[in-house]
Amino acid sequence: MAETATTHPLLETHRETLEAATTALRERSYYSRYPESPSPRVYGEGSSERGQAAHEATLNSDFAALADQPSTGRTVGSEVSPYGPRLGVRYPELDVAAAVAAAQAALPAWRDAGAEVRAAVCTEIVEQINARSHEMAHAVMHTSGQPFVMSFQAGGPHAQDRALEAITAALEEQRRIPASVTWEKPAKGEPVRMQKDYRVVPRGLALVIGCNTFPTWNAYPGIFASLATGNPVIVKPHPRAVLPLALTVSIARDVLAEAGFDRALVQLAAEDDGGTLAKDLALDPAVKIIDYTGGPGFGHWLETEGAAAGKLVYTEKAGLNSVVVDSTDDLRGMLGNLAFSFSLYSGQMCTAPQNVYVPQEGVETDEGHLSADEFAGRLADAITRFTADDARAVEILGATVNDDVRGRATDVPGLASRLGGEVVLDSRAVSHAVYPDAVVRTPALVAVDAENTDAYTQECFGPVAFVVRTDDTAESLRVFAQTVREHGGMTAAVYSTDEDVLEAARDAAAEAGVALSENLTGPVFVNQTAAFSDLHGTGANPAANAAYADAAFVANRFRVITSRRHV
Amino acid sequence: MAETATTHPLLETHRETLEAATTALRERSYYSRYPESPSPRVYGEGSSERGQAAHEATLNSDFAALADQPSTGRTVGSEVSPYGPRLGVRYPELDVAAAVAAAQAALPAWRDAGAEVRAAVCTEIVEQINARSHEMAHAVMHTSGQPFVMSFQAGGPHAQDRALEAITAALEEQRRIPASVTWEKPAKGEPVRMQKDYRVVPRGLALVIGCNTFPTWNAYPGIFASLATGNPVIVKPHPRAVLPLALTVSIARDVLAEAGFDRALVQLAAEDDGGTLAKDLALDPAVKIIDYTGGPGFGHWLETEGAAAGKLVYTEKAGLNSVVVDSTDDLRGMLGNLAFSFSLYSGQMCTAPQNVYVPQEGVETDEGHLSADEFAGRLADAITRFTADDARAVEILGATVNDDVRGRATDVPGLASRLGGEVVLDSRAVSHAVYPDAVVRTPALVAVDAENTDAYTQECFGPVAFVVRTDDTAESLRVFAQTVREHGGMTAAVYSTDEDVLEAARDAAAEAGVALSENLTGPVFVNQTAAFSDLHGTGANPAANAAYADAAFVANRFRVITSRRHV
Repeated sequence: MAETATTHPLLETHRETLEAATTALRERSYYSRYPESPSPRVYGEGSSERGQAAHEATLNSDFAALADQPSTGRTVGSEVSPYGPRLGVRYPELDVAAAVAAAQAALPAWRDAGAEVRAAVCTEIVEQINARSHEMAHAVMHTSGQPFVMSFQAGGPHAQDRALEAITAALEEQRRIPASVTWEKPAKGEPVRMQKDYRVVPRGLALVIGCNTFPTWNAYPGIFASLATGNPVIVKPHPRAVLPLALTVSIARDVLAEAGFDRALVQLAAEDDGGTLAKDLALDPAVKIIDYTGGPGFGHWLETEGAAAGKLVYTEKAGLNSVVVDSTDDLRGMLGNLAFSFSLYSGQMCTAPQNVYVPQEGVETDEGHLSADEFAGRLADAITRFTADDARAVEILGATVNDDVRGRATDVPGLASRLGGEVVLDSRAVSHAVYPDAVVRTPALVAVDAENTDAYTQECFGPVAFVVRTDDTAESLRVFAQTVREHGGMTAAVYSTDEDVLEAARDAAAEAGVALSENLTGPVFVNQTAAFSDLHGTGANPAANAAYADAAFVANRFRVITSRRHV
Repeated sequence: MAETATTHPLLETHRETLEAATTALRERSYYSRYPESPSPRVYGEGSSERGQAAHEATLNSDFAALADQPSTGRTVGSEVSPYGPRLGVRYPELDVAAAVAAAQAALPAWRDAGAEVRAAVCTEIVEQINARSHEMAHAVMHTSGQPFVMSFQAGGPHAQDRALEAITAALEEQRRIPASVTWEKPAKGEPVRMQKDYRVVPRGLALVIGCNTFPTWNAYPGIFASLATGNPVIVKPHPRAVLPLALTVSIARDVLAEAGFDRALVQLAAEDDGGTLAKDLALDPAVKIIDYTGGPGFGHWLETEGAAAGKLVYTEKAGLNSVVVDSTDDLRGMLGNLAFSFSLYSGQMCTAPQNVYVPQEGVETDEGHLSADEFAGRLADAITRFTADDARAVEILGATVNDDVRGRATDVPGLASRLGGEVVLDSRAVSHAVYPDAVVRTPALVAVDAENTDAYTQECFGPVAFVVRTDDTAESLRVFAQTVREHGGMTAAVYSTDEDVLEAARDAAAEAGVALSENLTGPVFVNQTAAFSDLHGTGANPAANAAYADAAFVANRFRVITSRRHV
């Protein structure tokens, strides 16, 4: 295997990419390997049409690319596009016991290939995924309900960049272990001399549990962190978002086979709606690592029962994303930026802002003083204007992903009344010209008082946000820090022209354990993070116990075994 | 605080030390800052006498150096030396609620001091501990029962080197996070430019639970890893080994105060025998990190219940340390080396060998072929010779630490009969000239067949080892790997002249997840690991879920909070 480890042809292919990515990760500077523009100038003439054709050929048929997985002989698949159509893709049902055995049999050669070869092969997988970004965009769109361009970007190149980031973080971490050292302890006469060899060994089988809204973006860090550190991976997609991960797994398996490794290193465990595979697999003694994105309930179960069962558990759940508004010298920029953040994918991002803390007395702006209610009104106007044109709005809002979200969006007055708040802006039904069955909704705003804690300290996933009236900015910061510390939060933002307030906001964010965006008025949004530079999640509050992708995310996925002898 | 962070005088004091230690840790090359010889030529004329005097002054009195901790007003302390005398030291009982509050109040300034200052202050603590190594040696000897020189070395400089290793690993990890970056994303026209600041924040309060046998060596990695990453630490010593950690904590508090920080960053929670403080503190919501060394029962409870309660848990328990004997070209060297490993501290090291796998057919040696029983006999002879002289033996064996160990050592025939094995060598009572009450025992050997799995798959802590007769070396390796994978193991050794067997042993060790020592016949022993080079534990088998001190041991003790803004 030593020769394999040093001479694999993919090593040279991806050397420069991995070097550039490593440098970016160390510096946390800007780096993106995969272009976010779906333009044919970037992805090639006809790429869009070929992607769409490939997607359509997949519908209403057996997913043949996974036919070689160990299977029970049955098929599963109950995906319905949030835009309306039933996908009709039938996936082979995994024979779990056989799959576990196959994964374990595949492990030694992958382990012995070494970190460099694994990184190169993983990168090749991502390259091949990138080549099918248009097809993937349709798969993501028709499982998550994201609008098309977002599906392309977040489901394609942005997810691929996060994958490469995880590969790079894993490689960097394994490179820190020298292969060998001659250890020489001074002694009377001759020194004591030993050769010590250090061998990186994986934990064992890894399980990645995908989510409905970001099937690729949230699954890739775990998949590639585990695979790059030598662990075989079973991917358990959300029953309503199988296709993007089925494509991913089939590409990974082909690349692995092509590179001389066992396809069983990556396997897909699809199931119908209502299945219990996630729990069953999580408790399988063979599973050593679990990556999860999804609702807090099952995430908490994994963090407690999964951890108690000795698994390494990495979760990304959800929380109360907060915006503290103190003052601004660019009211229009701020409102436009916030309107976009609320509207993008109808607030169905785990990073979308939910609670906007505004002092009752109001905020100073470049357009004069605004009371809290005036500010809320201006924010409502900005959202209304931004989503006024149905044809353009659907390209931002996408479709609502499930009935929970639809329920909240379609009865905002009822919700507000139950919570003791006032409707500032109701959600509007937007009609989709191409997909008339899609339920598309604009963001709603509900105003509440800070004392009404119950109203805004639970996650309200989807297109409803709260304007929370506080005594003053100091109270805003205090409530922000406390709610995030207790209930979690993936993102936070502050608007202020006062450097002391910004400094206090940074302290509050550090206290709460959440990343802070300050005075965003341009093309960067609080709900977006950039691979290699922004950590996604912090692991420091209840919303997530890990971050994409720091050292802690990868360092424990492998262990080091020493052998030593005198020389 | 920014100024404190860059101008603290201790930064310059320890710059070179930390640089040298960092290089060693990266290379895993030989490095030791703290001399292991207790000689006055190293530690200064009169250091031995001063250490002894200081120790004696501590006995039978209140431990005044911790009088400033928040206390209930009561005192605790029930230490009895394994050598006989009651120590009679009375420690102030910690007021836990007040201590937790004090620790949390101390956190922000320590956090904001930054990684470099924390590393320098932690190093100063270790330097001051080193200056009191002779006093510490007496404290370790009369709590653990280790012989004096071992108490000095393992309890003093070796523990101090492990402390410096943890500080260095923590510093290295925090240094990987840049303080700030200008992120520049290409765009049409002007690039999008942001400043991003990265702030290292600690998890919160850390708990370190010490053990009876290595009160300092096993506690320092956790104490210093947590402290160096910004977490205040409460140290909960074993009720029978309080004094070494009381000295440690009092020195740490003095150095912290001298360096301008709060003494409450390190506090001691001593208790009487039979107390429940470890469990109580482990479940305290304020505690975020737990480091534990000790018995598997409570360790497992922490790994399950502690982990389920959301704590980061680092354990070091115990397991079945194994020796696979295939062949040797230095029988005398091998037997001498093994006799030492069995005898040192009467096998009361978590790294001491327990199971020696020997092919029934026997082993080839430079003194001819030996059957398994002949080999066992030669090993017994070597132990007998090595421990023949009582006066010299006690300086290797030390004293038995508790009644469990004594019970096993004093009825080896009964033990062998219960387990279905044969006594090859009984344990001998050794009389101690200075401490007649000490129970000092030489190692016993019991022979069993490999089929008699129950006999040798439970830990038999103390001076009893098993010669396990197998079909052949292949079976030895198989049984070794399987028992360690199932029951854990801290160390493993192999003796063979056959490179294929050594290669197979390395594979078996990788499979089992345990470090391997090959053909040790000289001054290096399987039960000893060197800081900066050998990982102690692997975290890859049930004996320990972590290793001293890799990246995974430190990387999750802090989190990174980003704040970003346009520039």
